[in-house]
Amino acid sequence: MPKIEVCLTPALLNLYAIEHSIVVVIDILRATSSITYGIENGAAAIIPVMNVEDCLNYADMGCLLAAERNGEVVKGYDFGNSPFSYTADKVAGKTIVLTTTNGTKAMRMAQERAHQVIVGSFLNLTSVSNYLKKENKDVLLLCAGWKDNFNLEDTLFAGAVVQQLRNDFAVADDSSVAALDMYQLAKGDLRAYLKKSSHSHRLIKLNIEEDVQFCLKTDVCKTIPVLEGEKLVALFN
Amino acid sequence: MPKIEVCLTPALLNLYAIEHSIVVVIDILRATSSITYGIENGAAAIIPVMNVEDCLNYADMGCLLAAERNGEVVKGYDFGNSPFSYTADKVAGKTIVLTTTNGTKAMRMAQERAHQVIVGSFLNLTSVSNYLKKENKDVLLLCAGWKDNFNLEDTLFAGAVVQQLRNDFAVADDSSVAALDMYQLAKGDLRAYLKKSSHSHRLIKLNIEEDVQFCLKTDVCKTIPVLEGEKLVALFN
Repeated sequence: MPKIEVCLTPALLNLYAIEHSIVVVIDILRATSSITYGIENGAAAIIPVMNVEDCLNYADMGCLLAAERNGEVVKGYDFGNSPFSYTADKVAGKTIVLTTTNGTKAMRMAQERAHQVIVGSFLNLTSVSNYLKKENKDVLLLCAGWKDNFNLEDTLFAGAVVQQLRNDFAVADDSSVAALDMYQLAKGDLRAYLKKSSHSHRLIKLNIEEDVQFCLKTDVCKTIPVLEGEKLVALFN
Repeated sequence: MPKIEVCLTPALLNLYAIEHSIVVVIDILRATSSITYGIENGAAAIIPVMNVEDCLNYADMGCLLAAERNGEVVKGYDFGNSPFSYTADKVAGKTIVLTTTNGTKAMRMAQERAHQVIVGSFLNLTSVSNYLKKENKDVLLLCAGWKDNFNLEDTLFAGAVVQQLRNDFAVADDSSVAALDMYQLAKGDLRAYLKKSSHSHRLIKLNIEEDVQFCLKTDVCKTIPVLEGEKLVALFN
């Protein structure tokens, strides 16, 4: 029986042997949700980068550039990080460069060692879980967190995956147990639970309540983005 | 209102500004429980060290030496890490050198920057909480974890402290919220909850069930061990 583990922040990734594992990167608000939605809606590829300056390197390559600062689209960029920007009419056939500090860091760190890096969000929860069951390899659920800190929303999603996989995988660490229990506690109303989060005030200030509501929707998408080189593309399985 | 935060493993300690904080080091199974019980029972001081070899440096100083390997007292040492070794008849007036890898690491790291480092365990839960309320300073609850990994038992204790302090402190990070919720879930039967732990099998193999039961008893002690230089001594407050 393969094992499933939960890494609560990228700062703890070095504790996990992932050479033969599929790593699921989780950055619910909002990077991995927007990426899932964009790939679902036909984006050719999404390139995650660490910061706005990195985005500029792709300006002349015909990519769409997505960057936000303090909740506003950066001047001269095509759009921000809201999943609502990633609709088919805007992204189909396009390559998008997306600024996401925590998500990019987690993906790049995992990519250095992992067998495979895929992207998870509530939007493609069951699709990701079914793929993991089918592959039958060890799994690490990697929470991108917030500047290396633990956060609730990424951990809740990890718990949702553990719930779907726990009969087929060995739950191998205490963080998986914690994530599962927190998810069980929160699943009746994820949005209400997250009001307890330290980011709650920050989210209200950013005026992204509609984004948050959307990022907590379950199984709106079937696609699984997979990291190939620097690009996230649709996984064919 | 001062704030309370929970650091889930020593590997995340660098994320917290603790220069003006009281840090409570938590290593429930069994270091901070045994330390609390030993100081309660009149030990003059307890010196935490990283490994058995470090213990030997104190052999000629009239200290009692405590070290275990694989659940057995190391040959030639006075006793192991069981709290039952730290009774008044054995420790009153004595200085004990105690081998504890995770606990020592957490204490030394905290000591480099913190205003004060004290030791917490279920045994002195309310005593620690009352002291923190009285001092009215920022608090960091530092889980010693297991080789830098998150663990359930230390997090549950952190949650128990958050529960006692939450009306007097600002709960400032998501890990405090998680710890509190886990404690609420587990408090009816802490031992049963910990059976889900990844250490559960290890604990059974070590044959320390009586130790575990004792380490989960609440408010058996009034003392608060405080780190002064390399020694833990009773805090006068």
